[in-house]
Amino acid sequence: MNVLEERILCDGVVRPNNILKVDSFLNHQIDPMLIGQLAVELKEYFKDENITKVLTIEASGIALGILVAQQFNVPLLFAKKAKSANVDADLYTSKVKSYTYNKDYSMIVSKKYIHEEDTVLIVDDFLAEGNAAYGLIDIAKQAGAKIAGIGIAIEKGFQEGGKRLREDGYDLKSLSIIESLEDNKILFRK
Amino acid sequence: MNVLEERILCDGVVRPNNILKVDSFLNHQIDPMLIGQLAVELKEYFKDENITKVLTIEASGIALGILVAQQFNVPLLFAKKAKSANVDADLYTSKVKSYTYNKDYSMIVSKKYIHEEDTVLIVDDFLAEGNAAYGLIDIAKQAGAKIAGIGIAIEKGFQEGGKRLREDGYDLKSLSIIESLEDNKILFRK
Repeated sequence: MNVLEERILCDGVVRPNNILKVDSFLNHQIDPMLIGQLAVELKEYFKDENITKVLTIEASGIALGILVAQQFNVPLLFAKKAKSANVDADLYTSKVKSYTYNKDYSMIVSKKYIHEEDTVLIVDDFLAEGNAAYGLIDIAKQAGAKIAGIGIAIEKGFQEGGKRLREDGYDLKSLSIIESLEDNKILFRK
Repeated sequence: MNVLEERILCDGVVRPNNILKVDSFLNHQIDPMLIGQLAVELKEYFKDENITKVLTIEASGIALGILVAQQFNVPLLFAKKAKSANVDADLYTSKVKSYTYNKDYSMIVSKKYIHEEDTVLIVDDFLAEGNAAYGLIDIAKQAGAKIAGIGIAIEKGFQEGGKRLREDGYDLKSLSIIESLEDNKILFRK
């Protein structure tokens, strides 16, 4: 069991409908030492990929994103959420279905900051259905950038995102994979 | 001239209505090395204050916030923006007027993560009218926490936030203060 899994067992709270609350250390209150360790692990995994940019989405992806970017000594670029689909020649946009909030939004990224010369590492705190990850992939593809892989803190292995991404050939590194939250018990994938 | 001021002169873009765009290094694309240096400066300034928690607001405060929290080895807590004023016994809420977007929002923080034993350092990327800062102050006060001070990357010195905060007796450390953006020229306060 790794440091993140131990922390999830210790401080994570299971709620109905397969919700795992980790807002004491990951996405409301954030433990910088823990996230720093996760960033080091992602650096180690993707160290040979010549990453030029870390790409994430606001808000809770930013903390892990900036620490990963620091490890690689490259900029962090975070997509912003917009209610309506901005049509703007200066922006890449992608439509995303949100599992948590059960409604759609658009993510937007300025065209100035991602290019076909970039090799992008996509980072986020959670992976469930993979909708945010596929939105970021869509944006990187629109820019013609190379996608080195996807680094995730917590993957909900019983939802489809991880499976889809692996089947589509992406190099997905999830630092913890929840196999099940049934009966309020947190089980990790071996 | 410090490293942040040099960067603002080099990469900042002045737009009509006193808008300073710094989204190439501060609040869309983010330079982790620069933000890391700012975090070290805020640590140095507030090092004797026994900070127990760094408090900021999503989204662009999070990058500076997590690096400052790392310096102090304390948690980062970020307030979330909500469209409506949630009335929830588990949340502190404060109403905020947004200068940038010209509409009101509520910021919310879980009562679980801020207490009267806390000594809080409030951190944000920008200070203009001070509305976000006063919202965070309001939340810290509701929790009975001590406010050690406020650390800001860029203060727009020609708006009222900095003046109000200093007159109200807060220890405000702005790492750069823009005196004027008139005629598209960036002037810093000496």
